[in-house]
Amino acid sequence: MPDLRPEAVTRLAAHLERLPGVGPRTARALVEHLLVVDEGEVDALAQALADLRGAVCHCSRCFLLTESDPCPVCSDPGRDHGVILVVEEPTTAWAVEATHQFNGVFHALLGHLSPLHGVGPEDLTIDALIDRVRSSEVREVILATDPTVEGETTALYIARRLKDLPVQISRPASGIPVGGELAAVDRLTLAMALESRREV
Amino acid sequence: MPDLRPEAVTRLAAHLERLPGVGPRTARALVEHLLVVDEGEVDALAQALADLRGAVCHCSRCFLLTESDPCPVCSDPGRDHGVILVVEEPTTAWAVEATHQFNGVFHALLGHLSPLHGVGPEDLTIDALIDRVRSSEVREVILATDPTVEGETTALYIARRLKDLPVQISRPASGIPVGGELAAVDRLTLAMALESRREV
Repeated sequence: MPDLRPEAVTRLAAHLERLPGVGPRTARALVEHLLVVDEGEVDALAQALADLRGAVCHCSRCFLLTESDPCPVCSDPGRDHGVILVVEEPTTAWAVEATHQFNGVFHALLGHLSPLHGVGPEDLTIDALIDRVRSSEVREVILATDPTVEGETTALYIARRLKDLPVQISRPASGIPVGGELAAVDRLTLAMALESRREV
Repeated sequence: MPDLRPEAVTRLAAHLERLPGVGPRTARALVEHLLVVDEGEVDALAQALADLRGAVCHCSRCFLLTESDPCPVCSDPGRDHGVILVVEEPTTAWAVEATHQFNGVFHALLGHLSPLHGVGPEDLTIDALIDRVRSSEVREVILATDPTVEGETTALYIARRLKDLPVQISRPASGIPVGGELAAVDRLTLAMALESRREV
């Protein structure tokens, strides 16, 4: 008998191990914790997990994650529906919203172009974005894809698709993070920050 | 609208944050991971969690965690039921079993004496242990409580309770961990290791 762990224990540990950042030791420690805490707490966690994917869907308009379709942003008359901020993932929109600096609406691409991984324009929500711009009074599209090769490529591709429509297209500024040290910033960011320097 | 996270997302994050070693950032990263992985995987994790406490109970004889009562160890005629290894927690028994060096049976106290926290003998499974020793042919009780003040106190208390019964009582040896450096060992362990030195 090499292992006294009940099967329910090893099964849960195996599932936890598949989570990012959770190794065998952490998985074991988590299960041992869950074996001793209040049973109601474990059931509540199980229920919250079971609810997650059932309760949450993509907004049919902007593809953010939402429990109601259209999402609270798309159905809010107080937001400026003339400005669309395009992000790769819905979670990026959450980060933008936390800045309290953006009152427009969003569009989540659900990824980025990546020919190497077989991700083409038809795998993203780009056509839906073009339709949105074409069919409603959109003044500006902010292409806030990630500052990676794939993100830049995706932004360029969308900009090209939009170029014949009467809409302003922009990218967030690249530069030195606020509170960051100049010496600690990578060379590419530093170069872009210098190139985009502003008169004071 | 300060937060675009669907309620199911924040609720799950709040539950995950209560796990040991999981802060707000990790909880958020875990939920974002669970939002994109295969839905079947999330459901399987939820099910494994829901099953954990329902499927697992304490063995009525030795108080190890088990899915069948009596547990596989207690119901195994190939084990030496004359030797009981007493541990604080069932998980310690799992660690002992992994050494493949022990063929006796176990007894989990489910804690240790701690007057400061209001834990007395009646809160542990000490009476059940005394009954086991009294009613069956037990030759030896190995008190493998943790080498802490509470563990030592608990071991002493049990030894006193057992002293009039015809049973040998022992403690695992204290000493320098195998593969450890002498200089890295704490002073108390080093002192005990020297005191228990053996002729070679």
